[in-house]
Amino acid sequence: MARSLGRLCLGFHRLGTLSSVVSPPSLSSSSGSVRTIFARAMMGLPSFLSQPRDFSLPNSSWGSEMMRLYQQYNSQCEMEMEGGEKQEGPWQRLPSYNRFLKYAPGGVYLSQMIHSKARLFTRNIRNPGATFEYVLFFNSEEQKCVGIFQAGHLLEGPPGHVHGGAIATMIDTVVGAHANILSGPVVTANLNVNYRRLIPLGSTLVIESSLDKKEAKKVFITCKVTSSDGSKLHTDSTALFVSIKISHLLLGS
Amino acid sequence: MARSLGRLCLGFHRLGTLSSVVSPPSLSSSSGSVRTIFARAMMGLPSFLSQPRDFSLPNSSWGSEMMRLYQQYNSQCEMEMEGGEKQEGPWQRLPSYNRFLKYAPGGVYLSQMIHSKARLFTRNIRNPGATFEYVLFFNSEEQKCVGIFQAGHLLEGPPGHVHGGAIATMIDTVVGAHANILSGPVVTANLNVNYRRLIPLGSTLVIESSLDKKEAKKVFITCKVTSSDGSKLHTDSTALFVSIKISHLLLGS
Repeated sequence: MARSLGRLCLGFHRLGTLSSVVSPPSLSSSSGSVRTIFARAMMGLPSFLSQPRDFSLPNSSWGSEMMRLYQQYNSQCEMEMEGGEKQEGPWQRLPSYNRFLKYAPGGVYLSQMIHSKARLFTRNIRNPGATFEYVLFFNSEEQKCVGIFQAGHLLEGPPGHVHGGAIATMIDTVVGAHANILSGPVVTANLNVNYRRLIPLGSTLVIESSLDKKEAKKVFITCKVTSSDGSKLHTDSTALFVSIKISHLLLGS
Repeated sequence: MARSLGRLCLGFHRLGTLSSVVSPPSLSSSSGSVRTIFARAMMGLPSFLSQPRDFSLPNSSWGSEMMRLYQQYNSQCEMEMEGGEKQEGPWQRLPSYNRFLKYAPGGVYLSQMIHSKARLFTRNIRNPGATFEYVLFFNSEEQKCVGIFQAGHLLEGPPGHVHGGAIATMIDTVVGAHANILSGPVVTANLNVNYRRLIPLGSTLVIESSLDKKEAKKVFITCKVTSSDGSKLHTDSTALFVSIKISHLLLGS
């Protein structure tokens, strides 16, 4: 157990170090491989693992609006320069996986059974398009994160519309990833969501996260959810994240 | 289409009427059958339907803490009086189903494919214990709602712990049901959650919702999430709900 914990702590030390060391300025000029390591680390997946499925890539369930927005941002991840040379663009796509727990027991409370089966909440269903289809992009220069989200039919709250909790979940996912890039490992301390307009099931949405301010261990972020063409504001929200030591997760609170 | 819409509107008029007419004072003295109709209406299920699965009843995945708390509240739903006569107690269990959309098209945006497959977000997985296991109880005299929640292994956020969005979802579910009892059909206008302490996966929690105030079409509710023994505060939150006309859902916003 102690040996196992030591190995896991090592893995998370690596995660924490990577997340905090690869700050946005160095990120923008970093090599492709460092970007990959960084992105994996941010999503909690150590770099020494074999390639798992990246859920942020298009699949057959993505509708035309989802594809249009994906291509819009993805085309700005790598720019073709004069002479045909390729260079990193202002945006980067953030890979997304569905597991943490193979590599982290998650505290003394967690049974082995739960340990082996645990999956990230937003990636816990195999059926494409049924729940959360999303991809995140980060712009280091503008300190912005954008999520493109297609709301599946298993996210119902009010009849025919997306559950308020599912919307909060996507907001937390986007602003959490953003805060993690800016400050390393963090946890949500506050999430304040104003629901302005109902979201019909099946909609494609844009979730824009912007840095408000950083104060010591705190990161304040604002976020808005709009229709895919930006014409309708569905929610606006604020979030506060605080930095956390990985040992806090492993050893319980 | 028009005929279908008319039938659906009728169903929802019934839902809206029941939810608003059966207010807490009359509820406490109402007959068992009215209570059943009321509870179904609150969860969006017209009373003329055959019995679907009630997800708020115990299943094999419920742990000892979940069962203990269930029995604690359930035993106060029906009290045995002197002489063996049974009488309604201060609490009532609220049934919980996984479908709205068979009976509500959910607006002009919703395709037939989504329509037929849609499921309530918190009841969208068949595997018992994997995500949200919960049961809600309502106390009309105290104007309180209590949710007992067991967090499954597919709700992961931080390694080994429950996703902030999953916690927000359960809070929204409990306070939303509470607001619906108090004011009829409502939607969430604001949800403000302070995350005080991480929640390990597998935990059983108590979610207590209390009426703060009512103002015209607005209902203000406060809510806290604690460990099953009440010793640890995990989150505290406030929520604002506003009354909504069912036609708003059916015809889009």
